[in-house]
Amino acid sequence: MSITAPSGFRAAAVACGIKPEGPDLALLVADWGCAAAAVFTTNRAQAAPVLVSREHLTTGQARAVVINAGCANAGTGEQGIADARETAALAAKELGCRPWEVVVASTGVIGVPLPMDKLRAGLAQAVPRLSREEGAAAARAILTTDTRPKEVVLEFALGGSTVRIGAMAKGSGMIAPNMATMLAFFTTDIAVEPRLLHRALREAVGESLNRITVDGDTSTNDMAIVLASGALPVRAILEEGREYDAFRRALTEAARRIAALIIRDGEGATRVAEVRVEGAQLESEADRIARTVAESPLVKTALYGGDPNWGRVLAAVGRSGVDVDMGKVDLYLGDVWVAEGGRARPYDEAAAREALHQDPIRIGIRIRGGRAVGWIWTCDLSHGYVDINAHYRS
Amino acid sequence: MSITAPSGFRAAAVACGIKPEGPDLALLVADWGCAAAAVFTTNRAQAAPVLVSREHLTTGQARAVVINAGCANAGTGEQGIADARETAALAAKELGCRPWEVVVASTGVIGVPLPMDKLRAGLAQAVPRLSREEGAAAARAILTTDTRPKEVVLEFALGGSTVRIGAMAKGSGMIAPNMATMLAFFTTDIAVEPRLLHRALREAVGESLNRITVDGDTSTNDMAIVLASGALPVRAILEEGREYDAFRRALTEAARRIAALIIRDGEGATRVAEVRVEGAQLESEADRIARTVAESPLVKTALYGGDPNWGRVLAAVGRSGVDVDMGKVDLYLGDVWVAEGGRARPYDEAAAREALHQDPIRIGIRIRGGRAVGWIWTCDLSHGYVDINAHYRS
Repeated sequence: MSITAPSGFRAAAVACGIKPEGPDLALLVADWGCAAAAVFTTNRAQAAPVLVSREHLTTGQARAVVINAGCANAGTGEQGIADARETAALAAKELGCRPWEVVVASTGVIGVPLPMDKLRAGLAQAVPRLSREEGAAAARAILTTDTRPKEVVLEFALGGSTVRIGAMAKGSGMIAPNMATMLAFFTTDIAVEPRLLHRALREAVGESLNRITVDGDTSTNDMAIVLASGALPVRAILEEGREYDAFRRALTEAARRIAALIIRDGEGATRVAEVRVEGAQLESEADRIARTVAESPLVKTALYGGDPNWGRVLAAVGRSGVDVDMGKVDLYLGDVWVAEGGRARPYDEAAAREALHQDPIRIGIRIRGGRAVGWIWTCDLSHGYVDINAHYRS
Repeated sequence: MSITAPSGFRAAAVACGIKPEGPDLALLVADWGCAAAAVFTTNRAQAAPVLVSREHLTTGQARAVVINAGCANAGTGEQGIADARETAALAAKELGCRPWEVVVASTGVIGVPLPMDKLRAGLAQAVPRLSREEGAAAARAILTTDTRPKEVVLEFALGGSTVRIGAMAKGSGMIAPNMATMLAFFTTDIAVEPRLLHRALREAVGESLNRITVDGDTSTNDMAIVLASGALPVRAILEEGREYDAFRRALTEAARRIAALIIRDGEGATRVAEVRVEGAQLESEADRIARTVAESPLVKTALYGGDPNWGRVLAAVGRSGVDVDMGKVDLYLGDVWVAEGGRARPYDEAAAREALHQDPIRIGIRIRGGRAVGWIWTCDLSHGYVDINAHYRS
């Protein structure tokens, strides 16, 4: 039970040969057309499925999502768009809905055309298998370099009923979402007005999937989608208020759990860290500092080595582009206060080293300029990362 | 013969115990006070030697440079500044000049105080050893994670004389200079008016040391310094014109050679690449795209693997923050045209793979929006990089 935990959704997964082995095509289908919202990558190189799905979701409605792994259908020009459209049309025909009710998502190698013959055969195979029991299989079929599936189910009470949110995602490398995300799918069985649904998703992603970075490489294919089936016999959320807030909080929590699963499975990751910045003038500046530190190869290799080399954190703060008074910068590793006013202070080296072995590692930066706070989750840069990425296509 | 190849300079190197082993203190001394100019890191976290040397060089004059490896004297607050000043004062006393005629430069671990007892003893040892023959020894003493010294000598004709430029540098990691550089030292035996000297250095660095990136981590200690002894019996360069141009071109060439030596010795580097962007609206935009591609961990691991994964280049162009029409982007690997108008085109996979084994690898990006050009040199991200940086302080 996962993405299909909320009422009104079925899923299916098949291996159709887009990847050399294993399942690589997943279907997520609502029993009826339902409210849908999505956020997409801000990379200017946008994959065909991003372009086509954005167009389809302008209606605020969707019936199904077709997801393939092994081929990103990015850098594929007009043919890629035609292929994405054909995928949606084929699924619509099989499911008895209209093409614009089908969302398509792809992940994998960039610059290679989608093998449509395999995809057509896979779709025909998948549709008869649709069931509520296949959610976990779908979560496996969408993976690429991920080492494990990423699923979340949570429940919250609303109007005397128990509402469910289900989620599944893939993402391990090319992870630095920016107002969007990798592939993440959320379902819920409550009904939500499409524009409110979109707002809730944007807020949830802003506090979760937009705050993780594996390698700083924002993808061409990122998308996060939420489908609200309304299958539960409970009042629809049509306006802001207490019920909307409860839904938004639950969706944010689901997205945070998904984000945590993704960063823990970051390519080659052996350690996870939270970089937190306090005392900035603007939230955007706090976030920028946190991101610069979190993406510094020198900081990330020190995390891998368990080396409390806070000088690299200081150097990253200094090159973040934010107008920081370095004489007012304090640094913490876990609870160990290692630098004060931009310079070393006496601290227990063993305790600092211990802080690098906590989970997550907590890097704290206080810049004493204002009240804004920012944070980001990252992982270390290991030999495993180099192994995975040196020969990804080969 | 290297940094001391031009007339009027002597050098010395000693091992004084700042590093666990090997020479770690170098002196570069002009026979008389001479014109000097420098550019410094733009990182807001500036090491004490950067702050003190910038102050000293406002005079446009210098007599000596004291360089230590093993300790950056960065993140060391007021004590660090006092230590840098004392270093200059000690050298001045030994050399019979004034403290503000001494430039200090440090490289090594951040956040650790300079061991002044060792430095004092080292200085006293070094001064009697000063000679024109010790240039190469000095080039060795300034290294940290570098695997080899970096020296350049070149000559050019001016007014019937042969003018020499000597250079030495250190730099292997924390390399992403920004209007400044790692530690690089240039000498020449012609006389140049200090402000012209500064202009020539800025231009030279802008076309060389500012165009290399190993890890995107701009250092706290970067500096590039040029000393013009005027020891050669040739007319001084006091204004712009043909002679200034000849000098500037030669200095730029020396700086380019130094930059090439640094990038080839980038931490863990097994391959070197030139990323060239053509057709941008602004030079700054071309540079930004080139830098984003050159610093992408996914591009750099693909270089390491020899994998012509141009989709990663395309994705990096798209996330560079520059307003690029992705439908007009062409990509080349060496001479192989791999993508046209943002999408795959038919090409010879074997030839593309071959292009990844050339030296340097050439990544070409044409964005067809204007006439501006940008370029940067980078190296691959290898297991060696992770090895070197996971336990740098340990």
